Amino acid sequence: MSNSHAAHPDRLLPADPETRDIARRLLTYVEDLPIISPHGHLEASMFVKDEPFTDPTSLLISPDHYLTRVLHSAGVDLADLRVGGTEGKNPREAWRIFASNWDLYTGTATGYWVEQEFEHVFGINPDRLGAENADDIYDELSEILARPDFRPRALAEQFNLEILATTDDPLDDLADHKALAQDPTFSPRVLPTFRPDAYTKMYNPGWAEKTTRLIDVAGDGKAGWEGYLQAMRNRRQYFIDHGATSADHGLHDTDTTPLSHEDAQRILDKGLAGTATLAEMRAFEANTTYRFAEMCQEDGLVMTIHPGVYRNHSASAQEKFGNDIGADIPFQMEYARGLRPLLSDFGENKDFHFVMFTIDETAFSREIAPLAGYYPAAYVGAPWWFIDEIDAMNRFRASTTGTTGFSRYSGFIDDTRAYCSIPARHNTSRRVEANYLARLVAEHRISEARASEIIVDLIDASPRRVFKL
Amino acid sequence: MSNSHAAHPDRLLPADPETRDIARRLLTYVEDLPIISPHGHLEASMFVKDEPFTDPTSLLISPDHYLTRVLHSAGVDLADLRVGGTEGKNPREAWRIFASNWDLYTGTATGYWVEQEFEHVFGINPDRLGAENADDIYDELSEILARPDFRPRALAEQFNLEILATTDDPLDDLADHKALAQDPTFSPRVLPTFRPDAYTKMYNPGWAEKTTRLIDVAGDGKAGWEGYLQAMRNRRQYFIDHGATSADHGLHDTDTTPLSHEDAQRILDKGLAGTATLAEMRAFEANTTYRFAEMCQEDGLVMTIHPGVYRNHSASAQEKFGNDIGADIPFQMEYARGLRPLLSDFGENKDFHFVMFTIDETAFSREIAPLAGYYPAAYVGAPWWFIDEIDAMNRFRASTTGTTGFSRYSGFIDDTRAYCSIPARHNTSRRVEANYLARLVAEHRISEARASEIIVDLIDASPRRVFKL
Amino acid sequence: MSNSHAAHPDRLLPADPETRDIARRLLTYVEDLPIISPHGHLEASMFVKDEPFTDPTSLLISPDHYLTRVLHSAGVDLADLRVGGTEGKNPREAWRIFASNWDLYTGTATGYWVEQEFEHVFGINPDRLGAENADDIYDELSEILARPDFRPRALAEQFNLEILATTDDPLDDLADHKALAQDPTFSPRVLPTFRPDAYTKMYNPGWAEKTTRLIDVAGDGKAGWEGYLQAMRNRRQYFIDHGATSADHGLHDTDTTPLSHEDAQRILDKGLAGTATLAEMRAFEANTTYRFAEMCQEDGLVMTIHPGVYRNHSASAQEKFGNDIGADIPFQMEYARGLRPLLSDFGENKDFHFVMFTIDETAFSREIAPLAGYYPAAYVGAPWWFIDEIDAMNRFRASTTGTTGFSRYSGFIDDTRAYCSIPARHNTSRRVEANYLARLVAEHRISEARASEIIVDLIDASPRRVFKL
Repeated sequence: MSNSHAAHPDRLLPADPETRDIARRLLTYVEDLPIISPHGHLEASMFVKDEPFTDPTSLLISPDHYLTRVLHSAGVDLADLRVGGTEGKNPREAWRIFASNWDLYTGTATGYWVEQEFEHVFGINPDRLGAENADDIYDELSEILARPDFRPRALAEQFNLEILATTDDPLDDLADHKALAQDPTFSPRVLPTFRPDAYTKMYNPGWAEKTTRLIDVAGDGKAGWEGYLQAMRNRRQYFIDHGATSADHGLHDTDTTPLSHEDAQRILDKGLAGTATLAEMRAFEANTTYRFAEMCQEDGLVMTIHPGVYRNHSASAQEKFGNDIGADIPFQMEYARGLRPLLSDFGENKDFHFVMFTIDETAFSREIAPLAGYYPAAYVGAPWWFIDEIDAMNRFRASTTGTTGFSRYSGFIDDTRAYCSIPARHNTSRRVEANYLARLVAEHRISEARASEIIVDLIDASPRRVFKL
Repeated sequence: MSNSHAAHPDRLLPADPETRDIARRLLTYVEDLPIISPHGHLEASMFVKDEPFTDPTSLLISPDHYLTRVLHSAGVDLADLRVGGTEGKNPREAWRIFASNWDLYTGTATGYWVEQEFEHVFGINPDRLGAENADDIYDELSEILARPDFRPRALAEQFNLEILATTDDPLDDLADHKALAQDPTFSPRVLPTFRPDAYTKMYNPGWAEKTTRLIDVAGDGKAGWEGYLQAMRNRRQYFIDHGATSADHGLHDTDTTPLSHEDAQRILDKGLAGTATLAEMRAFEANTTYRFAEMCQEDGLVMTIHPGVYRNHSASAQEKFGNDIGADIPFQMEYARGLRPLLSDFGENKDFHFVMFTIDETAFSREIAPLAGYYPAAYVGAPWWFIDEIDAMNRFRASTTGTTGFSRYSGFIDDTRAYCSIPARHNTSRRVEANYLARLVAEHRISEARASEIIVDLIDASPRRVFKL
Repeated sequence: MSNSHAAHPDRLLPADPETRDIARRLLTYVEDLPIISPHGHLEASMFVKDEPFTDPTSLLISPDHYLTRVLHSAGVDLADLRVGGTEGKNPREAWRIFASNWDLYTGTATGYWVEQEFEHVFGINPDRLGAENADDIYDELSEILARPDFRPRALAEQFNLEILATTDDPLDDLADHKALAQDPTFSPRVLPTFRPDAYTKMYNPGWAEKTTRLIDVAGDGKAGWEGYLQAMRNRRQYFIDHGATSADHGLHDTDTTPLSHEDAQRILDKGLAGTATLAEMRAFEANTTYRFAEMCQEDGLVMTIHPGVYRNHSASAQEKFGNDIGADIPFQMEYARGLRPLLSDFGENKDFHFVMFTIDETAFSREIAPLAGYYPAAYVGAPWWFIDEIDAMNRFRASTTGTTGFSRYSGFIDDTRAYCSIPARHNTSRRVEANYLARLVAEHRISEARASEIIVDLIDASPRRVFKL
């Protein structure tokens, strides 16, 4: 280990010496536990192929919109970072841009993760990051990535990865998941997650084609809304048969008002004909959210939702680079009213697991903790996306625990496309929990013995329990 | 005292040794002050009868929706906890359920209060709580509750209870309050609070019958809207004559737009005929809020409001157990626009006391502190309901003081149905104030001498001043 | 220096000794840097005339609505404080009212600033503040204000004021700014700021007259909407020619939907005829916001916005004292949707500087940091108005840094009418930055060497860079 602050054993722990000592002790209970990642955005094929990563840029920069958005805000052209398949610069040049802008990351979660990756995954002192060493580090990394112990499967072992969920289209054949499940030489469980958003949002390009195909392919010959529901049921079962335990829903908002099947049919027809109004499109989406919850009552999939993000906020950037390039912006979100139809009908069923994520952290103390502290079905989702950074994670704990305790927590979610950041993200979560619990102990609110049970439960048992792993 | 963390003299005080020392010193100024509780949900009859509490479950569990909701979220049937008069299990069995789920309360405000009650009210080490000692503790508590020094009046003395307000229907005859006021052997002041919600919300079942009866009984023979107003005026005066100093309003939202008396009459008629629209019902409620403020200008009652809670969120649970069972969920609330009609007309009157509570803590720094920091009538209500937990109380101070100081604070409100939690709740508030003020002193923002004045003012003088006690 | 807590070298620094030591060291890098104030409300004429301040009340009390609102909330008549030109009491009597209510300011940002002014500007021990010394202090201050080293220009030197921006009407002739720029004996740069609000808000009294005059005077003979745009362009250029680098916009909300020029013309006509609806008025304002951003693409002015304040909330007070008397109340504000038209069209231009202020601090982590962390044009505005107090400033850092780092920060803004509070406000900001950065260092998130670079960048380089100074 280097002498960088990134290697310091007390990183992220509280500064007060007495509280820090408690936190250190709590951390020992969880620091070496295996990684359970019930939601993320890696590809199962990566583990099937197990090919070496081609270069540092395509591994660490281009696919990570947390990272590229910072450079973009400083005026860097995303094409120069090879975002979305563009090739404005070659990989080494792109790396130099990143390295020479390294100062921008000071204080960010992304900067912290990168330093941790360098220190703990690649064994490179992160204090060397910067313009002057850009080429040296690029060469060192390139050499490292060529080594057999840095292929995807070997890294999974190094990371102590026990469970990893991917995010998949309902029509995905899940062949890669099947191959991994049947491979006795590969121990991590790589599970698919059912993500039907492309079929619920009439306002997105391509919706009609995709939906028509879904009904044709999986609807058991039924047409229209009946076929739509049947196709979803069938594909959920297919996912379950291939190891899925959860379905994930990136909702526009929390509306879950059900429609009669007649109204759903009517709007579906209009949507396919291209004549639905925006209000109808929203009503259709809300109805699907309700219907997916209804399906959970039968098939037992965990349901996760994350509403409230304005996708592809920059019209010009979307045109140039496509989706998921970091131009997504959260907006205000409410949970109490929108979720009432769904929770009033299904929330009292404790075998139904309904995890509420938010990017509007004001909802934690106001709505999410109160909902999860009442409904047997409702769980507090871990801080998500923009608010999965250290200070926000601390605020999350302080905003939900007093009302709802620890038992309604989803477990940590890394939600990442950046493979090598996974250990750093999970380690961050463990340190934040130790930090918060140590404060409760130091303030004589709970005993240290109890805190040591809680931290193990949060890190290890919660995700298994909530995601039915 | 036991060696439990619940008995630790530094509980809830800051961990930093220097700041903790300051907090300890500040706490000595207020820890033994009498309890002033200007708003809560106990029954005056309890003190009139002064009967022994029948069993631990009916005292500590069934009526406390803070506590039962946690168990419910874990899948416990509320009927098994004897909520709302149900009898799914007998009291001892219900107690065992609670005890065997005790771990769920770690880190919650409720868990903290329960531990404090055991340690400081019943003299039972709370570390013994859990499944294994369930029956033993039940027996010990049963024995304790049979003792004369654990009857309601004796506890009031043990708690150092000086003033306690109840919450009462406008047509309540207040006989119990009268009896207590005339009883020379009972020293606490038990005051009624005028709570007219049942007559303002046309959308609630029973509104029409209750309102018709109110006008008939108290309207001086006047009919319609004129009778409604007259009945309210009369009953407020009746409450004042029986010691009331405040009227409490659980509003749907903050709208205070007045209606002309003609419009009020028209909507009242439609409401009684069952033909009012939801928009008209809301307009009627908003108008009553304005009219109650108007009455305050004449009769001097303090006006408290707490908008923004979705009541009885779970339709199925409401059907089974009725109201007030913990299925109430806050939602986003704004104060600036809704209150403008009321404050623009009455807010400049410093003899009018208008206390704004919120369960949406985002309103503290954004609207409530700015309003209370300008209008002579407006006061910042203490953290309420879901946010009366320790971390939220700390956030409250840090969100309002910089803008508005300490002088516009309502004083602590326990708002409880759980009699034995009252000392723990008030003690929590005193420790949180010491914690916050100690930090200001440690950061050289105020002197310790000034902090020691402030803490006494917050705990003792504020509630007396704001609630005109 | 006195022995008051206001003189303590560790004021506002963290209490933990290790963290405090780091903060002390960081503070040394910035404590003596010159003051850069890119937005505020002083008059340039003050420096042209350079006359002695007439009395303590007119300097320190009457114009400072932060300060008078606190007294007003305690029931003091604003007329007695000589607000808005009223003369309810003479200056000495007004001073006595302030002094005898000094206790109200404990814990407030205003109280802290006043103490700092007494300690560090006037050399009076602030512990003497209070009723008993009211007259003595008034006399001492009067004497001090008569001294040549307490005239406006001399104070600017004492304050180490390098750049100060004023806020000016588009039709202002800027003669005072010109005089100062040409005066070799006066070194601070006093820059005008283009503030066109009076011409964008049809719903405000006087809009039609002002707008007609603007078009007549500056529209190059063009009429209607074309003349309006031309006049704005011309006056912006006039401001630029007189040193302006930014235009400031106090918006009702964030809507930036552009109108076709035909629609703009149509609504402009209705507005001038007094027949526009409120919705049209809002649409007109939103369109002007968009058009001002469009002009920035040509003329390079920095654009600052601060939406979401209910102005002149108390109708009765407005009638009596006019605007800007402290009765302005923030309300909920969203940024993602409203700003989308503007940012989607201009946000990718890194030469366009668009600074988003908020008084609703919930927007920091949810929308403002994510927007500024993506768009090259977008900057996170410093905490503004009600939330420029110490605890809120700390929350601001913790709410934005993890997502967006430090590079998108506007630099501190004092936004004040209270000249003598400027050093205290800027010093507060420097201490808060040291406090936050010290914690990051103590938690091993960044190195102390890096923190010492960051703090200089935040205090000195950021405002110069963002405001193109």
